[in-house]
Formats: sequence, C-alpha cells, structure tokens
Amino acid sequence: MEKVRVELGERSYDIVIGSNILRNMGASLKPFGFSPKVAVVSNPTVYPLYGDVITTSLEKAGFDIMTVTIPDGEEYKDLLWVEHIYNMLLKARLDRSSCLIALGGGVIGDITGFVASTYMRGISYIQMPTTLLAQVDSSVGGKTGVNHKLGKNMIGTFWQPRLVWIDVKTLETLQKREFLAGIAEVIKYGVIWDEALFDFLEAKRKKILNLDREALLYVIKRSCEIKAEVVSKDERESGLRSILNFGHTIGHAIETVTGYRKYLHGEAVAIGMYLEAKLAGMLKLFDDRKISRIKALIDAYSLPFEMPQDIDVDHILSAMQLDKKAVAGKLKFVLPEKIGKVRIQKGVAEKVIRDLLKS
Amino acid sequence: MEKVRVELGERSYDIVIGSNILRNMGASLKPFGFSPKVAVVSNPTVYPLYGDVITTSLEKAGFDIMTVTIPDGEEYKDLLWVEHIYNMLLKARLDRSSCLIALGGGVIGDITGFVASTYMRGISYIQMPTTLLAQVDSSVGGKTGVNHKLGKNMIGTFWQPRLVWIDVKTLETLQKREFLAGIAEVIKYGVIWDEALFDFLEAKRKKILNLDREALLYVIKRSCEIKAEVVSKDERESGLRSILNFGHTIGHAIETVTGYRKYLHGEAVAIGMYLEAKLAGMLKLFDDRKISRIKALIDAYSLPFEMPQDIDVDHILSAMQLDKKAVAGKLKFVLPEKIGKVRIQKGVAEKVIRDLLKS
Repeated sequence: MEKVRVELGERSYDIVIGSNILRNMGASLKPFGFSPKVAVVSNPTVYPLYGDVITTSLEKAGFDIMTVTIPDGEEYKDLLWVEHIYNMLLKARLDRSSCLIALGGGVIGDITGFVASTYMRGISYIQMPTTLLAQVDSSVGGKTGVNHKLGKNMIGTFWQPRLVWIDVKTLETLQKREFLAGIAEVIKYGVIWDEALFDFLEAKRKKILNLDREALLYVIKRSCEIKAEVVSKDERESGLRSILNFGHTIGHAIETVTGYRKYLHGEAVAIGMYLEAKLAGMLKLFDDRKISRIKALIDAYSLPFEMPQDIDVDHILSAMQLDKKAVAGKLKFVLPEKIGKVRIQKGVAEKVIRDLLKS
Repeated sequence: MEKVRVELGERSYDIVIGSNILRNMGASLKPFGFSPKVAVVSNPTVYPLYGDVITTSLEKAGFDIMTVTIPDGEEYKDLLWVEHIYNMLLKARLDRSSCLIALGGGVIGDITGFVASTYMRGISYIQMPTTLLAQVDSSVGGKTGVNHKLGKNMIGTFWQPRLVWIDVKTLETLQKREFLAGIAEVIKYGVIWDEALFDFLEAKRKKILNLDREALLYVIKRSCEIKAEVVSKDERESGLRSILNFGHTIGHAIETVTGYRKYLHGEAVAIGMYLEAKLAGMLKLFDDRKISRIKALIDAYSLPFEMPQDIDVDHILSAMQLDKKAVAGKLKFVLPEKIGKVRIQKGVAEKVIRDLLKS
C-alpha cells in the first residue's frame, strides 16, 4: 500500500493506494471515532461488485451499515437525488458524527461529498473511487457538486474527505471507454505539471491498456501526488488550482451543450485539451510540434480530439460564459507553454475563440 | 455606528450596528471587490419597506442589482425555494465573485447563507437583518440552513457572512409578536453568559418595549458581542458554542411537533428555556428562586413558558432524538447553574425528561 498525504492543516488526509485492499478498509476507520452507523452511497452497477466485501469489512470493524443507491449516470447527479439521500440518512438517524462512504465513480463521489457537506451542517465522508477518473482526479481535493440544467457542477461546496481509499483492482471491472476517459485526466497532469508522466503515458501505453498493476500504481500515485500538491497550495481555487482546469473550459461547455449525453467527462476534456493547446498555438505560446504530440497521445488512447461538426459555436461560447470559471463574463483559459508547464491566460478575445472553434 | 468584530482568522468580519444606517450600506461594500452584479434576497413583507433605500445605496456605489423574493415564513425555508434562488442567480449569471445580500429576518438570512455557501462552491453574502431575532442571533456566526420535513435546519452549512449590517430603526416596522420573540434570545444570552444583561432586561423593560434607541443599541450590541466571542472560540460547535442552544433542545422539538406553525422560534425557545431551567432544578443544579426569576422575565415580555397541554410527550422525545445536537441517540442539554453561567449535561435519563414534560 502506498500513501499520499494531502496537507491542508486540520483538514489533512491520506490517499491510500493499493491492489486488492477493499477488505482492509473497515479497520482503517476505527481511529476516526465515527458514530457506529455509516452509510455507503453507491449505484446499481458498482454495489453488486464490491458491496459485500466492504460491508463485511465495515461490520468486522463494528459498524452498522446502511446502503443508499442512486441510478448510475451523470444525469442523476442533481438536487432530486441529493434530497433522496437526505431522506434516507434522516430516516436512519445518521448524526453529526456519522460518516458517509462514496463507493463508485465521480458522480457518486461528487454527490456524496455534497450531501456530507450539507447534512446537519457537515459530516465526514470517505472516498472509495472505483473508476480511473475518480481515482486520479475527482476523489481528491474536496470539490463536491451536482449539476443544474444551466450548467455542470453549478451547485456544490469545497468539503474535504477524511480518507481516500483507492483499489486499482476495481479497474478490472471498469468499461474500457470509462477507463480511457480517465486517462484523459492523467494526460492533463502530464501537460500541466510533469513531462515525465507524459513520457510514461507515451512509452508504457501497452502496459497501461493491459492494466499492468505496477504501471497503474505509478500513474495513479503520480496523479494523486500532483493533485495533492496543487490543492495543498490553493484549496479553494483562488489561483494555482485553476491550472487543473486545463481542457475543462471548452470541455465543460461541450458537455453542457450536448446535455452530458454524447461524451464522458474525460472525452470532453480530451477535446478541450487539444483545442486549448491549439489556442495556445494561435496565441504563439506553444509550438505546433507539441500540439501534435498532445494530439497523438490523446489519439493513442482512443480519445476524441476534434469538436463534432454539428455543434453550434454560439452555444459553446454562451456555455463558457456561464461557466463557474468565468468572472464578470470574461473568459479565462489555462494554456500550455511547454509539456509540463501551463499559464493562466485572462481576457482572451471572443473572436480568437470563434476562429478556434470554427477551425 | 458601533462595530463588533467576529474574529475568525481569514473569515473575520464586522457587525455594524446603528440607527438609520441602511442608506450607507452600498459604500461600505466597495473595498470587498465583488463583481458588479449583486442579488438582494428578501420577501414581500420586508422588500417594500427597505428595498428602495438599499437599491439606491447600492446603485450609487456602482452595483447592478437584481432582486429575488421568496414568500414570507419559516415554512418556505426549504429546498424548493433554494432551487428557485439558484435558478434566478444562474439566469442572471452571478459569478464566483458575486455577492448576495440577505434583507429580512432569520428565514431570509438562513436560506441566503445556504445558497451562498453552495452556489458555485461558495460565494460571498452580507446579512442585513430586519428582525430582532436575526439581529441578535441568526445573522451572526455563519450557521446557514433550511428545514426538512423530518427536522428543522437539518440541511445546512457553516458559512460566514462578509459583513453584518444592523439598523435598529427597522425594528419600528416589526410586528410586536416578532419583536418579543427576539427578546427570548436576548434573555438566553443573559442566562448563559451575562447577568448584567439579564438585569438590564428586567430593569429597562419599559424602554425596550418602547423601542428606545439607546436601550436597543445596548441590548443588540451586547448580544452580538457575546455571540461573536462564543463563535470566535468555537466556530463549528464542537464544544463551547453549544451553550447557545440553551432552551433550544426542547424549543426545536416543540417547533417540529407543532409543524413550525403554532409558535415563532423565539416563543418555542422561551418555553424551552423555562423547561430546561426546571430540568436543571430537578437535577439539583439550579435553585427554585432563579427558575422563578427566569419565568418572570419570560412572562414580563409576554412570551409563553408552559408546554401546551395537547402536545404528545412521545412526539417531543422522538423529535429531540432526531435533533442535530443528539449523538448516537443520547440527549444533551445546556443547563443553567446560575444566571450568567451554564453547563453542558450529557446523557440525561429519558425518565427525567418524561417527568419534566408531564409536570
């Protein structure tokens, strides 16, 4: 088992990464002093696979477990399902010292974190991410949220988990398409922070696609280390943390305009990364050879990189202006300067973005 | 104008108290660097009285104002109206640097604070309390929340305002019953912290009831000072802050069982204070003469002190066990030892409480 520490003062916590470690989770909760009753929040896809082993592990550690499942999919990450979870927790009388356990992908983690942050003014939660995307990104850093019809994650909080428990073995049951979407966020870490990670993704493609245990542990641990470092320096995204949004300004807009249906989050981010790399090229910040290298890596993991032909440029622009990252209608982008380094570019002219989107 | 500082590190803020100071509010917001668009959240009772003066003041300071009103009453402090506010803010494109202004009583303050804490993972808000209860209690300390059918304020966050702006002149338009309900919380501060304040309430009853400016300024400032001191020492209610719940364990249960309709919050707290003082007497912590003194002061402000005959004791007990303050089903009370000092009493036997409620 490997450990990465997220340093946030009294809100610090560990990310534990290993293979076949779900069964050890219960014992690790004992020192926290939670109330006996814990709730596992999951979905009907993941719970049948891992529910038993976790329940057994928690029961052995003396906990009384209730399970709340919500349907599987980004379209259920909304206030309606938040209310459903509140109802279940209140009926079961979970109290201020209770703990929620998010067992699933990003949707489960985001909604469980949001519920934890708002139930009785905030209770504890544990992340047990079972998708690559959640393991390398959404389970770490305390961003919680649900979608609104006017935009993704518009409603949410910053609320740190008490522990993140990552078992790479869960990736064996993950759909290939979901796995590849997670790789998009790993590519992102390479571009914004660590050329060596980018090189590794290029060199070890086969091993990674074959779910080689060592390769996965390296990729996931390195991603968590980068995220932990960035988040420790800027928990609430007042500066540095926004570099994690590389690919996301355009990516989120694509998701909004396509109603979260056409693309997985990582796929939309892959398109966003390529287009934002091209934007950096248009602004003479980044050279064509590197743009091609990013495009080639995205493509090597069978991820999309082109904006679909049928998308309306005005809709994309409008969605970007409503994005949380926009302030007073002005657009901000995270743009690469080289592989492993980005800058934050404010006030990019709308015309440049139109040209980019039409190209 | 008087100022009370709530010391909470980077979340510190001022409470400004004065008479006829609404018109000066806009200018005081300039140093905060908010986005130009601000939203005033209010209700159809308060907005017609003070909306114009505030809008004018904000416009003079260069802000672009939108108004969101929700119906007046505790029964509208729920997730449905939270969603309505989210919709309005998103449509008007309020961004991460925008600010909400809560203009009204405790309901408006609580729901606006909750929306601010969860909109785009947290934006700024200002409290402009127009009821005595909100001025002396709910506008200070960052407790936000909405009600759930299974209990009061079950959904909420800790999210501090950036400024609290109290104009005692607004009390002139407040219904007498609402004013008296606010006095209940002032009596509470006297009992838990400050015998001199308790004495003042006894001695200056006439002046206070006649809304004498100096008397009100003293009562409100002293209440805010006490609350600020307690909150500064224990923001998230892990210990000391729970003394502010004197009268509330029973008070909240009464509100829940009567569906928030029969009593105003302060009225239910008044009953709760008298019963909890009696409980302290039953446990030999507090003598009969002091119980009578509390009862007399509650009565002097025409507040109720007896549990209504038709309330089911089992319902009250059940509501108390579901209260946020209960941990693993055990009941905790804040009990007076003398006027000006309380203790936290854990694990009070159910039988004692039954005897108390039946007495």
